[in-house]
Amino acid sequence: MTAPLRVGIAGLGTVGGWTLRLLTERRAALAAAAGRDIEVAAVSARQRGRDRGIALDGLAWHDDPAALARNPKVEAVVELIGGAEGPALATVEAALAVGKPVVTANKALLAAHGLRLAAMAEEAGVALAFEAAVGGGIPVVKTLREALVANRFGRVIGILNGTSNYILTRMEEDGLSFDAALAEAQRLGYAEADPSFDIGGHDTAHKLAILTSLAFGTAIDADEVYVEGIAAITPLDLAMAEELGYRIKLIGVAISTEAGIEQRVHPAMVPKNGAIARIRGVTNAVALDGDATGEITLAGAGAGGAATASAVVGDIVDVARGLALPPFGRPAAMLQPFRRAPMQRHAGGYYIRLHAFDRPGVFAGIAQRMAEGSISLESIVQRRQPAASADAVPVVLITHATTEAAVRQALDGIVADGLVAGQPQIIRIEKE
Amino acid sequence: MTAPLRVGIAGLGTVGGWTLRLLTERRAALAAAAGRDIEVAAVSARQRGRDRGIALDGLAWHDDPAALARNPKVEAVVELIGGAEGPALATVEAALAVGKPVVTANKALLAAHGLRLAAMAEEAGVALAFEAAVGGGIPVVKTLREALVANRFGRVIGILNGTSNYILTRMEEDGLSFDAALAEAQRLGYAEADPSFDIGGHDTAHKLAILTSLAFGTAIDADEVYVEGIAAITPLDLAMAEELGYRIKLIGVAISTEAGIEQRVHPAMVPKNGAIARIRGVTNAVALDGDATGEITLAGAGAGGAATASAVVGDIVDVARGLALPPFGRPAAMLQPFRRAPMQRHAGGYYIRLHAFDRPGVFAGIAQRMAEGSISLESIVQRRQPAASADAVPVVLITHATTEAAVRQALDGIVADGLVAGQPQIIRIEKE
Repeated sequence: MTAPLRVGIAGLGTVGGWTLRLLTERRAALAAAAGRDIEVAAVSARQRGRDRGIALDGLAWHDDPAALARNPKVEAVVELIGGAEGPALATVEAALAVGKPVVTANKALLAAHGLRLAAMAEEAGVALAFEAAVGGGIPVVKTLREALVANRFGRVIGILNGTSNYILTRMEEDGLSFDAALAEAQRLGYAEADPSFDIGGHDTAHKLAILTSLAFGTAIDADEVYVEGIAAITPLDLAMAEELGYRIKLIGVAISTEAGIEQRVHPAMVPKNGAIARIRGVTNAVALDGDATGEITLAGAGAGGAATASAVVGDIVDVARGLALPPFGRPAAMLQPFRRAPMQRHAGGYYIRLHAFDRPGVFAGIAQRMAEGSISLESIVQRRQPAASADAVPVVLITHATTEAAVRQALDGIVADGLVAGQPQIIRIEKE
Repeated sequence: MTAPLRVGIAGLGTVGGWTLRLLTERRAALAAAAGRDIEVAAVSARQRGRDRGIALDGLAWHDDPAALARNPKVEAVVELIGGAEGPALATVEAALAVGKPVVTANKALLAAHGLRLAAMAEEAGVALAFEAAVGGGIPVVKTLREALVANRFGRVIGILNGTSNYILTRMEEDGLSFDAALAEAQRLGYAEADPSFDIGGHDTAHKLAILTSLAFGTAIDADEVYVEGIAAITPLDLAMAEELGYRIKLIGVAISTEAGIEQRVHPAMVPKNGAIARIRGVTNAVALDGDATGEITLAGAGAGGAATASAVVGDIVDVARGLALPPFGRPAAMLQPFRRAPMQRHAGGYYIRLHAFDRPGVFAGIAQRMAEGSISLESIVQRRQPAASADAVPVVLITHATTEAAVRQALDGIVADGLVAGQPQIIRIEKE
């Protein structure tokens, strides 16, 4: 048997703690799988004294994670610090600079510096592995990069943020308001004190950018993701979705179009009987539309210490086995420049909810603006609600396939004409 | 860039043809991913002259696939002949004997000879890769062997045979009889002229045995699978399932118990709202219950030329990248002997359908036999059907958790007491 692989773990939060625990408790089984022992040689964290419920005896301690990366006793570096810059970046750069493989769960780091770090890893001939950065314990990175390598993809769609899906599920199933569902998620530890990164769609955007690069062979570009969060979704929208045969989910979608690649994160109406619609609570799911395979769906826990650590340890075992693939599936220099399809050209159906003034001519005015934009309507639902204002009633329009530009222009006209109170709610419809 | 990998393809049926097509059409993309070109050097099939719609110009032709394996121009052998013995076995043995890696989709071969062939591959230090043998394009082998290596599994459950799932779906959704649904599946090419291998559960058993070995680290043993097919399922059972909140699926289950490992294939009642229940038509799905990840579900096309070839080509690219893992995830010599849990000790709920004679005392007699076996009932449904015989009425009993032995004994008593017409129908209930 080959000599042991000595790893250093930078970051001992929930995922780091679980990684250390799995490497220790499963040591014999992992050695059998890897063909060599995997030994934790060093650790680094912010607070040395903190009780983590795991013995750190015999492990070298580094206050500075970049020093851990440079420690000659450490052969592979596991970065679980988090954040796009600062110590996480310094640690990964230090490791790759001296030719050590890196395993990370850091999606923000990859979104910001993925292409450059991948080139560094390839230059050094070592792995930069990041299964844990997307979908927690779901093996979507390996599936795209290895198992489905023979496919061209038309679309990748996923529920990639458990916090947002939990909130939408609670709103849908129990009629909670967004604020009440968020407060509950925070109480249960599913949402951060500052939840904006999750509910604003930015976490999903980072993960989506990684999947886009893997699926379409393009340079990762998280700046070119269209992002909308879920804060504007109301119980009324969820009730209307139910009635119309949809559920509302925060999705990340990458789709290849003639105009380029659409990368978008937004709440969407998805058909109620589809694979994405039935994903409840903090579960994640990804559907990969390969041309050879047809749609492959992966689902499971998208976060949590043990599930994420499972992905980290899977990557460590790959490193121990000597695997050092190009991080994004092909050499960084061969990734195509990312070409963004303009959102204005997005084509699809739309759910539009208006508060229309309750007076003669208003409906005719709305219909006129829609007709001018060549937008045809699949259904119109009018609801008089107890809580509606005396003057305005909720009206929901479901359009046939049209474009973002046409919808925006028609709604600007409807608002300018003074036909509706407040701003229209727009939710895109995503077909399965 | 390294020298090209020259592969030989033995078997040019649907999967072989698609493999050749993908390797040819995606050659540049596959070379970018593999870090070297992949070149088809030789092929073998039964009929040389047959029009396959693919050009074979420039490829060495072998009438004997084992000769292809020995051809010095062939560096890796792709076996797509099928069958547990004969030319498929000869080809794989010939390749491994001279130290060439093998990619195969042949579940019957692995079920019969997997352990010995794995040992040969490890001895030679080459890959024996078989992603395509289970679940078509779904990457379940790679997921178990690589991505989820840090997990211990409590249960693996799957819908692994598209033919059977298609038939059950048609019976459920359109009230077809088993025979009518089978005839339709044959007309559409989803079932063979002799369908017994699929509908009898044997195909599922081969696939399950592979998954068991990967998940539990035991030597593959397909002889130790309890197998029941779907031919006895009636529209009445499907209607009762619907009413009681279940669907009936042909499942393969491997579950770790104190008495050993249960490996079983049989129709089961699965909760209607679960991930397995919603798999329709020829789709396959597998749920892997890892202790670190929680349940991970993979779903997609479980058969078909292009989907299966996608898995074959994924394995070929792994071979080109130099991957040569122990085929069953750890060295063959370290796999534990398979210890079968006796089916009589299977514990769970049961659906039991009887044709009870319509006379005083019969219900009391049935209840008495159940009580003697300490079987408690969750529900009892009695149905008078237009088609029922004048003397006997269908009665469905749903039991709380009990054992196979207790149920069998109680039903033997009920039959011996002359309380029912014909043999009872028994369908196990499988919790999500």
